[in-house]
This record gives sequence, C-alpha cells and structure tokens, in this order.
Amino acid sequence: MTSLMNKQWIKAATPKGAIQASDFALRSSPIPQVDAGQFLVQTHYLSVAPVMRRYLIDGAGIEAPLKIGDVMLGRGVGRIVESKSKAWPVGTFVQGKLGWQEYSLQSEGQTPLMYPVRQTTAPLSTALGVLGMTGYTAYCALKDIANPKEGEIALVSGAMGGVGSIAVQVARLMGCTVIGVAGTDEKCNTLTNELGCAAAINYKTDNLTEVLVRHAPKGIDVFFDNVGGEILDHALGNLAQYARIVSCGRISQYLNESPYSLENWGQIGAKRAKMQGFFVYDYEPLFAEAETVMAQWIAEGALHYREDILEGIEQMPHALMRLYEGKNIGKQIVKVYD
Amino acid sequence: MTSLMNKQWIKAATPKGAIQASDFALRSSPIPQVDAGQFLVQTHYLSVAPVMRRYLIDGAGIEAPLKIGDVMLGRGVGRIVESKSKAWPVGTFVQGKLGWQEYSLQSEGQTPLMYPVRQTTAPLSTALGVLGMTGYTAYCALKDIANPKEGEIALVSGAMGGVGSIAVQVARLMGCTVIGVAGTDEKCNTLTNELGCAAAINYKTDNLTEVLVRHAPKGIDVFFDNVGGEILDHALGNLAQYARIVSCGRISQYLNESPYSLENWGQIGAKRAKMQGFFVYDYEPLFAEAETVMAQWIAEGALHYREDILEGIEQMPHALMRLYEGKNIGKQIVKVYD
Repeated sequence: MTSLMNKQWIKAATPKGAIQASDFALRSSPIPQVDAGQFLVQTHYLSVAPVMRRYLIDGAGIEAPLKIGDVMLGRGVGRIVESKSKAWPVGTFVQGKLGWQEYSLQSEGQTPLMYPVRQTTAPLSTALGVLGMTGYTAYCALKDIANPKEGEIALVSGAMGGVGSIAVQVARLMGCTVIGVAGTDEKCNTLTNELGCAAAINYKTDNLTEVLVRHAPKGIDVFFDNVGGEILDHALGNLAQYARIVSCGRISQYLNESPYSLENWGQIGAKRAKMQGFFVYDYEPLFAEAETVMAQWIAEGALHYREDILEGIEQMPHALMRLYEGKNIGKQIVKVYD
Repeated sequence: MTSLMNKQWIKAATPKGAIQASDFALRSSPIPQVDAGQFLVQTHYLSVAPVMRRYLIDGAGIEAPLKIGDVMLGRGVGRIVESKSKAWPVGTFVQGKLGWQEYSLQSEGQTPLMYPVRQTTAPLSTALGVLGMTGYTAYCALKDIANPKEGEIALVSGAMGGVGSIAVQVARLMGCTVIGVAGTDEKCNTLTNELGCAAAINYKTDNLTEVLVRHAPKGIDVFFDNVGGEILDHALGNLAQYARIVSCGRISQYLNESPYSLENWGQIGAKRAKMQGFFVYDYEPLFAEAETVMAQWIAEGALHYREDILEGIEQMPHALMRLYEGKNIGKQIVKVYD
C-alpha cells in the first residue's frame, strides 16, 4: 500500500437542483483495520452514473438515503490488497459497491453484489462498463424485455450515454435497424458513422415525430428509453403494434421539480404494447451469458465501447456534473489508481 | 324465418362528443341471398361495448372506420337459419361479428372470428359475456399479463362493468385480495357484498390515493385498468415493486378531445413494473381453458355474472349511451330474438 490514509468523498449537502461541487466534501480517514471474514479493496476505477444524484436525496429507491457526512455510494473496480477471508484472496480483482473512496472494507457475508472480474483480455475498467453492469443492462434488458426479432426497428434514447451506446449496438447485433437519439450533432454523427445506427435524431434541433415517421413509417418495435419525458411521449405516439418499451432510465426527470405530463400513455393499450421497468440486479442469472456473448462481439470487432476517463479521485463530483451537462461520450469513469 | 326484411342500424353521423341517437339510423333491407360457402345467422343477442363509439370514428385501430350508411359493427350470438356451407350447418349456435342487424350473411372463408357456442348449461346470452369475449378478456389478461400470486393485492377499475365485474372475481379466485373502483355507492356495495371485494372505492367521492394507502400500504401488485386517466395516475402512484398493469380499456378518455396528462408514468420504471396493452383475440389459444375453468367456477357458485339486457334491436343506440352514462350493471346486452 502506497498510502496509509484513505481519501473519501462524503455528502456535504442535499442537492436542490443541479449537482454542485459543494454537495460533496473530500476528507482523509485512516484505512480501516481488516477483521476475520473481511477484506480490503483498493479502488482502481470508479463508475459515475446519473442515479448517483438521487443517492444524495432519497436513495433512488434502491439504497438507504445518505446522511450528511456519509461516504458517497458508487460502484468501482479494484484489487484485494489485504484479506482475512479465504473466499476473497489477496490479488483478486473485483467489481462492486466500493463507494467514492480509495480503500473499502468488505465483508464476505455482506457482499452479494461483489463479483470477481474473470475476463483478462479487455482493460480492467470495462468491468464498470461494457463488461459490467452498464453492458449487462443493455444486454439483459434487450434480451429479456424487448426480445427483438430480425428486421425490427429499435429506438434508443440517451444513445451516446454509457448504457445507450452499448444498447444501440446490441440491438443491431440482435437484428434490429436502430435509430439513436442524442443531444448534439457530434454525437449523432458518431451514432451513424461508428455505432451502426441507420439514423440519429438530435432531440434539441430535430422534430422527433417527423424523423420517426420518415424512418419508421410503420412505427417502432422496440424503445430502449434512458431519458423519459418528451422523448418517451414522441416514441409512444409512434409505436408499432406489440411494441416493447424498456424503461431503463429517466434522466430528463431527475432534475425536474414536477414530472413531465405524458400525453400518449394510451398508446400502450391501443398498440397492445408493453412498457417495463428494468433493474439490472434482477437479471443476475443472465450476467454470465451477457459477459460471454459481448466479450465475443468485442473480440470480433462487432461491438465497440467508449470510455470517458478522468484522472484522480478529486474529479468525482465534476465527473457526475458532466453527465447532467451531456458532456460525456461513452461510459463516464474516474481512474483512482493504476 | 319469421320476417323477410332485415332491420339494420347504420351509421348516420360521426359523433363529436357523447354518442347521440342521431348518430344512427334504422333501416329495413331485404335478407341477403345465401350463395355457396355462405350461411345466414339470425341474431338472438347483440353485445354493447364502449369501443363501439370509436368504430364510428376511426375503427378503434382494429376495424376499418365506418362510412355513413354502413351497417354498425358489433358482436352477437345467434343461430344459423340457412346454410350452403358444410362446416356451418343449420341449427348451429354461433357467436361472432354479426353487426347491429337481425340477419347477417357469413362466409366460411371469412370467419376467423366466428365461434360455435359449445356449452349448453348457461343461457345463450353468456356467449357475449362471462363465457365469451368479455369473460375471456378478464381471464386471459389476468392469467397471461398479471399472473397473480396467492396473497397479492389487485385493483380493478370499472369494476362493475362487463369485463370489470368478472375481473374482480377471477382475480380473487386466482388468490388476490381485490379492491374495486366504481362510480356509485350502489356499485361499491355490490362489489364488497356480492363480488367478494375486500374494499371498494367510489372514484367520484373517495380520495383514491387515501384509500389505496389504507388498504394496500405496500402498494398494489396487479392493476386491471378499464378506465385510464386519473385512476391510472393514482394507481401508478401506489404500485408495489414488480407490479403488473393490464391496460384493457380507457373509457375515461374516449370522450375527451385532449388526452389526460399522466404524471406518475415514471413509477413504471422506478417500481420495475410492467404495463401492457391487451387485445382478447391475441389470446385465442387460451379461450378453451378460460371457458372450461370459468364454467366450472359458475357451476360451483364461485363466479357470478350480471347481464343488463334490454329488449329489441331498436334499443341499440340507447344501450350504447347507457354505458357512457355509467347506468349499466354488468354486461350490457340487447335481446333481438328469442
């Protein structure tokens, strides 16, 4: 170990609107002592995701809400540097809930969401992205909820985000013609030129319905929604019969005080469609398949991933703010230790 | 045949708001001649359903829109009185798309939605209700989309309507604690006193969310929605995790010029719930099971049905208006011939 202290980001305030640097504080604590059945993980990379803002507010319905002074929650990948657990020996690379800190103490009995990193061909950071929960989200949601058939049309919102940029490719590799929705022309160009989208929509300048009617005159069969709100409304207004909507994220709403008023909800019934919420940890039995299939696609050059890596744990609040500013291209990651 | 003429209701106008008698006109036409492969059905009972208003406007997405002068569409049950088809002999009782008329000419090659009535213990009219598409709708939607587990809580809107009054009982017989939503205290009393609901909500006088929080503090697991709009919004705001919502009908919306603005749509994602549109003819493979199981429940006295039967084909427009006025109790039927 190169340091005897453990840098940690703690909650300093509950955000009211947009995330601010002052919602967090950086502190140094002693590295905790390892007792029987415990092991210490040194963080190599930390994941950054939109849902983290809600960890500060209400726990997002999946975590206990954070109090002022609590270490910020989040997933990371790291290496076991000290262990008093036979199941988790020193040297093992793991991914799991490490928190925004350089070192985390884990207990073998309390680690249902800690996974060893098995693959060795791709960089370690992919365990936070394409070969981790981000990629598993895209794969499992498409496989289980959307279950696309060859030749169907899939729409993906937030298409250049962490999950979205994998979802567009997985949908294509599952046989779909894919339309991506993003917020800049640069992102739209990447979608059509590099990620195999048949068309891309800039939701800030294009009329969504107009583009959908042009590219999907019979309606969309699959909608992988990371955004919600107005984009969802347009998608609902242009559904094909028996469409499947994966409700994966609602980034358009996380900053809103009052929710978007959805008008085309009746189309779910009228089109005999299905809209279903998705939570990746419900799909653990599919993870091994997702890893195998996607690792193969990567090896064949069929599946590309992008990581947007900032350096240094000090960057964490800034990295989270970038997501809400739409600045990241691909999975937002912070490198903590090499 | 007792008459040489065929009374028919035709479309006279496209309704703008509520259905009016003047949207229809009654005419007498000669009974059509039966050619090879055809058969003539004498209507005994006609079904009345909210969706029929939309047949006049846009076909409801399932029929070609009616033109002025076309015979009004609708299902009925009757007897084959003349036949030049070996597959459909004289004397067979059938249910299917007879239209609002005393006699209908059917062709053996064009009758995928014509079914012989096989059961003989219950009255013929049940083929339009509990032992026909109305009952199959309740059974198939609950079985396939909701798939309730013992002890779960089910909410049914439009609970004293044709589909709803069967859905509350089928949900109970599948193991649910059932809460019904209706629009009068009289209907609410019937729900709790006769149909086995644990609670009933009068949506015109009760605060839905208040009642739901009291009777389903952990949220509702199944929502069988015949109404949409504000009731759907309350239900979405009170979902249990992994809730299933059957989007069966939207009677609150059929008269609205502009759709209800739904606020709690994000709960579908947040609660990992599923909302799915239902169309009964997609479930034909389940019809035989539905008929067998529900006939058995009726024989055991476990499943009750109510029919609201008006006499005479002249009553058809009035019968349809009654649905929108909430006056019917149970399946609305018109007896055309005894």
